[in-house]
Amino acid sequence: MTDKPLAGAGLRGQSAGSTALCTVGQSGSGLTYRGYDIAELADKARFEEVAYLLLKGKLPTQAELDAYITRIKRLRGLPAPLKAVLEQIPADAHPMDVMRTGASMLGNLETEEHFDEQQDAADRLLAVLPSIICYWYRYSHDGVRIDTETDDDSVGGHFLHLLRDEAPSELHAQVMSVSLILYAEHEFNASTFTARVCASTLSDMHSCVTGAIGSLRGPLHGGANEAAMAMIENWTSADEAEREILGMLERKEKIMGFGHAIYRESDPRNAIIKKWSKRLAEDVGDSVLYPVSERVEAVMWREKKLFCNADFFHASAYHFMGIPTKLFTPIFVCSRVTGWCAHVFEQRDNNRIIRPSADYVGPDARDWLPIEQRD
Amino acid sequence: MTDKPLAGAGLRGQSAGSTALCTVGQSGSGLTYRGYDIAELADKARFEEVAYLLLKGKLPTQAELDAYITRIKRLRGLPAPLKAVLEQIPADAHPMDVMRTGASMLGNLETEEHFDEQQDAADRLLAVLPSIICYWYRYSHDGVRIDTETDDDSVGGHFLHLLRDEAPSELHAQVMSVSLILYAEHEFNASTFTARVCASTLSDMHSCVTGAIGSLRGPLHGGANEAAMAMIENWTSADEAEREILGMLERKEKIMGFGHAIYRESDPRNAIIKKWSKRLAEDVGDSVLYPVSERVEAVMWREKKLFCNADFFHASAYHFMGIPTKLFTPIFVCSRVTGWCAHVFEQRDNNRIIRPSADYVGPDARDWLPIEQRD
Repeated sequence: MTDKPLAGAGLRGQSAGSTALCTVGQSGSGLTYRGYDIAELADKARFEEVAYLLLKGKLPTQAELDAYITRIKRLRGLPAPLKAVLEQIPADAHPMDVMRTGASMLGNLETEEHFDEQQDAADRLLAVLPSIICYWYRYSHDGVRIDTETDDDSVGGHFLHLLRDEAPSELHAQVMSVSLILYAEHEFNASTFTARVCASTLSDMHSCVTGAIGSLRGPLHGGANEAAMAMIENWTSADEAEREILGMLERKEKIMGFGHAIYRESDPRNAIIKKWSKRLAEDVGDSVLYPVSERVEAVMWREKKLFCNADFFHASAYHFMGIPTKLFTPIFVCSRVTGWCAHVFEQRDNNRIIRPSADYVGPDARDWLPIEQRD
Repeated sequence: MTDKPLAGAGLRGQSAGSTALCTVGQSGSGLTYRGYDIAELADKARFEEVAYLLLKGKLPTQAELDAYITRIKRLRGLPAPLKAVLEQIPADAHPMDVMRTGASMLGNLETEEHFDEQQDAADRLLAVLPSIICYWYRYSHDGVRIDTETDDDSVGGHFLHLLRDEAPSELHAQVMSVSLILYAEHEFNASTFTARVCASTLSDMHSCVTGAIGSLRGPLHGGANEAAMAMIENWTSADEAEREILGMLERKEKIMGFGHAIYRESDPRNAIIKKWSKRLAEDVGDSVLYPVSERVEAVMWREKKLFCNADFFHASAYHFMGIPTKLFTPIFVCSRVTGWCAHVFEQRDNNRIIRPSADYVGPDARDWLPIEQRD
């Protein structure tokens, strides 16, 4: 940490616009999407329904939902030049760089020429982002060129199917749906704000989403579930986990997956994903990772009054489903793209270019110094 | 325009951080980079010297400048997978989509793994962005695979050389240098702010620059010089230009290249590029485009008290050098990347994640609605 005053303090608490999409940390329900509580959405809706809610402004009727699912299923194919680009990206690339490049390349091939194409651009990105990451992953890691068009009804099922070459179990498809719902939207977080700043110049949808992916890539934003996984997978028992966490706290090491910039007492998404992580642990007969995770949660609360955020139990849940750790943040992208696009719609609907001021802390005006007089 | 209150009014006048890089519109000198007046920089420095000033914090000695030029020259080559990606992008793609995808792809191949690589990442981007746009342009438009490593001492000379297969004249190289200096840095404009928001998550340099390119692509930000060109090239005399402009004003059509969000009385960059546009007009024996441009400037001031910004005379200047209009904004990228990277360094040096609040204007908390009850 630094002693310097923080630059603008990150605009904390300053309004940068208005939104009808989401409330975070308001009294009562904690997190709502268009007024609906996250717990009810996770319990009763499927992800495609939530995507529809965010992108189109209301919960769909059965006919609307069926049509939307059919539509998304038809948009999963990758254009040949995009496949060729993904094949150029090495296996050791950062998967978020792959997502960013894939979204950007798509913009060259299917440019959003006018804003009346924005719903189409959003639907296409929602459908194709799992195809992008899995095509690259399977090609670079397994040497196969997969067909990205599957018959799975859900975005999460499609993702798992591409990853493993078989349709997922009912349970896995359901957990993916819940997970994608939990990550779909979160007000003016840094990646969403990136998308809105970009949208405010009246740039195209692919630029907005590409920029947002780049911001989500940062370790202070996305990636906490990957960091949590990297930590907990080292430990073979709850007791060992407790000893290690206490050591980390004593050494003031950063422990990922805890606390939140806005929530003060708990993250409403934690109880939901924790329940599903437990179900998956029972399903796979786990006797290590889930107990380790629970113990870490208890110790962090006991010692520091720090609560698990959405990311912590996502780590074990994804792991139980056999998802490679490096694909955790790309899944976040496959979900949050709904929130990003919905925010772009809002920004465009009532736009002024986002152009803040800065406090100047540099040198006063000074005379030119000829090159031979410099040192 | 809309009657709705503007969303957050674009953070206008609100400080989002501090910078030592630039002052815009302060009393006296109008625009300074690290305290040096833009007029003196454009008159006395070369662009590589200004890039050094922005990225390394001081004007270089002769030995430092020579070494920096040598370094930039060595970093112009394109990795084979990046060439392969550029070859997949069709000729009718938006050139800013090409820049965005090229910068993103580079991040897969030369990932900035640690922040102590940030100067290297910035230098590489500065050197290679002209190679990226010209490689794509020449391949997709002329069907040739160019060698992007030239012996030109300057970034602008390199760009022109790749575009035309021959080293530029002294005059053209000088105008490019001035132009790149004028566009290099401009405080917390939307693309730079995009880069800083991305940097605030501690993401990598390629994500920051990729995001910034996406924001510069928007017609409210970059692209005004292209729009100005598209307008003035239609007119065959100053009198015709005057009639047409008066008609456009009467119809309340937007006229690009005039006015500024921050400057109130003039844009200090205009007089500089206007002088060079005039020199180029004499050089090519123009008797239409420059007089048309001057007349448009005079009419806009007489009728609306609107002044030319940096973009307006850039249109004719670039045109006189034979640069295709669609490459105007990519040149802006080749320059502004210095400012973007310098801002990323600053953000990282004193970081807090940029995460503003929003005013919630959506529905109150509401109960779940089962699908059969919806309409």
